[in-house]
Amino acid sequence: MSDTIWQNHAQEAKRLDAEDQLSHLRDRYFIPENMIYLAGNSLGPAPKAAFSEVAKAVEQEWANGLVASWNSAGWFAMPETIGDRIGQLIGAAAGQTVLCDTVSLNLFKTLHAAADLRPDRKVIVAEASSFPTDLYVAEGVIKTRSNMELQLERPGGPMLEELINEDTAVVLINHVDYKTGALRDMVALTRKIHAAGAIAIWDLCHSAGVLPVELDTAQADFAVGCTYKYLNAGPGAPGFIYVAERHHTNLSQPLSGWWGHAAPFTFEIGYRSAPGIRAMLTGTQPIISGRIINAALDAIADVSMADLRTKNLKLTDYFIKLVAPICTKYGATITTPIPHHERGGQVSIMFEDGYPVIRALMSRDVVGDFRAPDTMRFGFPPAYIRFTDVLKAAQTLDDVLSNGIWENKEYQQKGAVT
Amino acid sequence: MSDTIWQNHAQEAKRLDAEDQLSHLRDRYFIPENMIYLAGNSLGPAPKAAFSEVAKAVEQEWANGLVASWNSAGWFAMPETIGDRIGQLIGAAAGQTVLCDTVSLNLFKTLHAAADLRPDRKVIVAEASSFPTDLYVAEGVIKTRSNMELQLERPGGPMLEELINEDTAVVLINHVDYKTGALRDMVALTRKIHAAGAIAIWDLCHSAGVLPVELDTAQADFAVGCTYKYLNAGPGAPGFIYVAERHHTNLSQPLSGWWGHAAPFTFEIGYRSAPGIRAMLTGTQPIISGRIINAALDAIADVSMADLRTKNLKLTDYFIKLVAPICTKYGATITTPIPHHERGGQVSIMFEDGYPVIRALMSRDVVGDFRAPDTMRFGFPPAYIRFTDVLKAAQTLDDVLSNGIWENKEYQQKGAVT
Repeated sequence: MSDTIWQNHAQEAKRLDAEDQLSHLRDRYFIPENMIYLAGNSLGPAPKAAFSEVAKAVEQEWANGLVASWNSAGWFAMPETIGDRIGQLIGAAAGQTVLCDTVSLNLFKTLHAAADLRPDRKVIVAEASSFPTDLYVAEGVIKTRSNMELQLERPGGPMLEELINEDTAVVLINHVDYKTGALRDMVALTRKIHAAGAIAIWDLCHSAGVLPVELDTAQADFAVGCTYKYLNAGPGAPGFIYVAERHHTNLSQPLSGWWGHAAPFTFEIGYRSAPGIRAMLTGTQPIISGRIINAALDAIADVSMADLRTKNLKLTDYFIKLVAPICTKYGATITTPIPHHERGGQVSIMFEDGYPVIRALMSRDVVGDFRAPDTMRFGFPPAYIRFTDVLKAAQTLDDVLSNGIWENKEYQQKGAVT
Repeated sequence: MSDTIWQNHAQEAKRLDAEDQLSHLRDRYFIPENMIYLAGNSLGPAPKAAFSEVAKAVEQEWANGLVASWNSAGWFAMPETIGDRIGQLIGAAAGQTVLCDTVSLNLFKTLHAAADLRPDRKVIVAEASSFPTDLYVAEGVIKTRSNMELQLERPGGPMLEELINEDTAVVLINHVDYKTGALRDMVALTRKIHAAGAIAIWDLCHSAGVLPVELDTAQADFAVGCTYKYLNAGPGAPGFIYVAERHHTNLSQPLSGWWGHAAPFTFEIGYRSAPGIRAMLTGTQPIISGRIINAALDAIADVSMADLRTKNLKLTDYFIKLVAPICTKYGATITTPIPHHERGGQVSIMFEDGYPVIRALMSRDVVGDFRAPDTMRFGFPPAYIRFTDVLKAAQTLDDVLSNGIWENKEYQQKGAVT
């Protein structure tokens, strides 16, 4: 597009930033100078308060407090105390959420726990478009249960809703598709799952922290999620598990370890599951990695998820408006749904040569990411992304495509992109 | 004991410290002023370099490097790179050790993987005296396999060796007993297990980092261990898994997640296990908590495990010599074996009122710990414990017992001690 057009856009972007009621939040995050960071849906940037939160945990609690800190600094209770804080963002009343382990492990636990609630049913329904680890874990669950099978919603095949019937024990759904950014209707789908007598597990990896999630209202049964994407808790920070209180009385899962025991410090030989949500725990949690999320939750404590979501939609609307003509011109396709109620926090663009395009953008300080075979993803976390960032990203994409920059050899070379 | 006797001991303790070839190591750890910290077998103190290692990971790699650090900072390779460093301390050649998850989860994986190698056998043999989570996990494994059972070596019953026969698939052994500090003979027991055609899993939680472990030499099959005790990696730092290379070709475990996939970034729908030790991985690892161990391994990089062990035995010998007459006087029993080849890194004392004694000691800056129902534990990590510390601990124990200090109400009150 011509420079004049971009100059006109620049006025609009500046006005949108000036009108932004959340613009004060950006200063709470560390964003490298000149970087337009649109990969917060993959790894969120560091809240500045993370530096002091880590120093407190390491220097004050570990180095000085030592073994006493398991109690005095609340380390042993961390899964529940931080779990409850996360619960506030995902519509979960207290006592139903724990911070622990990884999303994959938490799915193993919840799939078993859910299947145990429907012992006469044999089918797990999921999406072929799931983030793959969900399916790998489902395979592992089937390996460790007798006679269960996995049925997948596949492109061209029956829709998820059509696969759910009286044989369905559990339905595992990605709330937001990691690749396209498509958002499922949690209330409606949970109702359909319950109407068929099945149990719903929601994977919130790409929704928690960027849009309002209402687990209790939707009567969801189980949920799992990630804290290092939109929840800014740092690389590989533990995941979380939600279990609706009505299921706590019959809660069982096979990764039985001492942190899930009813009386962990009596050192009994036999396993007795803890009452309540702690039954989902297994072993000792990584305190330093787990603690960082406190800083991230503090950084958005004075704003509502509804306001964050409103800005997130404005950002993705604006990006879509700016890049739509570019995509048309170069044969790229925006795969993220346009209706707001079907859109997550990101915008995805399908382009056969997306990999070198993403690398060329990175070399120009615009950081998105690539998902094989052909998806470029751009995330728009509302706490720190500005409308002028959106404009710069779109303009750089235009530059990279229209000047053939992505065809340079240096960007074509394959390597792992996470 | 009389003050004169303690004054004579003080001369000896000072002489032993002066002769100690490893005394320079202590300055590499942060030990709170005046504290005699004998709980390093539960939670190791912070190596001073941990502060800068954490700051580097958080500020340089996460905050500045962001998503690129998965590759450029070696985050994705962390399980293997740190695993290999740990391998050097436990007699494991490169490529056989990974840092990941928790000990409980790692036991679930290794028990399944080991049982898969002996599909026609149905029994897991373990010790009733195991750290209880080992048994809780074994219960979970049995729940998720058909027709397996758990047989335990129990007090008064047949010895572990007598339980091993042609029905035994797997034997799970604690290298050092967490409660008594008794050390098993890894070479001899592994040989017996193999003679019966079974697989050996060694739990190294209380041996790795304090005494020489020779997994390859002993022809161990699998091992798991903890990094936050004698390996000083911080509260809840990830555990590790060792799998002997000869088992890598048939390695399978049901906690199949994307970090264990042969091609994690091609986003395939079906699970294909990675070749080699990465097959034992599941989900994304907690980078900040995982990284800290680098500082701890650096702190002992210029000394040998043999020299560390020599000093550790001198320390426990000295403590036993000092407290034996006190124990005799007050009806307490040293339960840690006296022969060096049967002793781990700690000294345990059985005393019915051990709990208030430990609390009274803590109030006097001598930190040991208590394990229900009646065990006081004192750990002697050789890198930072001095002979004068040992003396002070013994003298304080004498004071607490002989002056009835432990009978004060404030020490009797029950609370969680970890």
